[in-house]
Amino acid sequence: MLPPSLNKLVQELNKLPGIGPKSAERLAFYLLRCEEDKARSLGEAILSLKKGLCVCHLCQNISSRTPCAICSNSQRDSGIVCVVEEPLDVLVIEKTQEYNGLYHILHGALSPLENIGPDSLKIKELLGRIEEAPPREIVLATNPNTNGEATALYLLRLLQKFKNIKTTHLAYGLSLGGELGYTDQVTLGRAFRGRTEYH
Amino acid sequence: MLPPSLNKLVQELNKLPGIGPKSAERLAFYLLRCEEDKARSLGEAILSLKKGLCVCHLCQNISSRTPCAICSNSQRDSGIVCVVEEPLDVLVIEKTQEYNGLYHILHGALSPLENIGPDSLKIKELLGRIEEAPPREIVLATNPNTNGEATALYLLRLLQKFKNIKTTHLAYGLSLGGELGYTDQVTLGRAFRGRTEYH
Repeated sequence: MLPPSLNKLVQELNKLPGIGPKSAERLAFYLLRCEEDKARSLGEAILSLKKGLCVCHLCQNISSRTPCAICSNSQRDSGIVCVVEEPLDVLVIEKTQEYNGLYHILHGALSPLENIGPDSLKIKELLGRIEEAPPREIVLATNPNTNGEATALYLLRLLQKFKNIKTTHLAYGLSLGGELGYTDQVTLGRAFRGRTEYH
Repeated sequence: MLPPSLNKLVQELNKLPGIGPKSAERLAFYLLRCEEDKARSLGEAILSLKKGLCVCHLCQNISSRTPCAICSNSQRDSGIVCVVEEPLDVLVIEKTQEYNGLYHILHGALSPLENIGPDSLKIKELLGRIEEAPPREIVLATNPNTNGEATALYLLRLLQKFKNIKTTHLAYGLSLGGELGYTDQVTLGRAFRGRTEYH
């Protein structure tokens, strides 16, 4: 019923995460209606996304150079390495402005169901890095879900052989701006266990 | 902080309706991570969107030919014309399978604030069409908001000179699957005014 080029775009948009069939239609009709050069610059931005990108040989983040801007920044504390699953996590943590150390991106989490084992992740690279220049602290900041926690526990075991490195995880607790009544039991339990004295 | 090509894509995605900065980042990182040809086919679909598209000279809908598939379908009731604001509205109405007449797309609604007057809409085309082949009914299906209602009232006045054409609007009332308590007062009032006997 839709013209072929429109139908094709709806299908492609529908494949994106968080974009269902209705949003896909809405976006496609928006792109149809908007000025020609607006749609063109989006299309071209997608096509040239990977141009000039490489992987930082230290932290494994996607960057325009290696070592990346964070790894080569002498203002940052190279004594702390924060291990995350995805490049997006780095962006989110940077926005908090609470962390000034380095990162290590695993590019995923252990997931037996999806056949993702330790060799699929950048764990070898992490160990190599640590042996070469041991930090004083490693923050395991994988996602607080089954796969992320399993990955953190796996890394924790591997890191035990480095006696002088402190291994930490992020605090679990209430979301700011949220409501206690809407917090799930597990999180609320963790928030109690981790309760902190005012100072 | 983001590599330039990634940053550019985030900005472009952020311009789309309903996609805020966070979703834009999420989508951009998804496109970065996914297989090369998946991203490429989306980019190309956007760039070739307008290829082979034209405007139907009768209903003004966007189509791959003129007259479009609906206007040239002899199975449809050419005695009813449903007037809508946008091509997307046709898609939504078609999905209901409750309507078998023809359409007319205005490509917008009257909006004094945005400087959209009658001449910006496909109203001349509607009147020309009606004079040439008068239908027995015209359904004014503009949006149930200020601009849409103003457009419907404007059209209603123009259509008064066609004595033999019945002009209708869609029913106002409760959303199915919704809850009475969450329905706004105006809609609920309209639902009362339009209450219908069981049969």
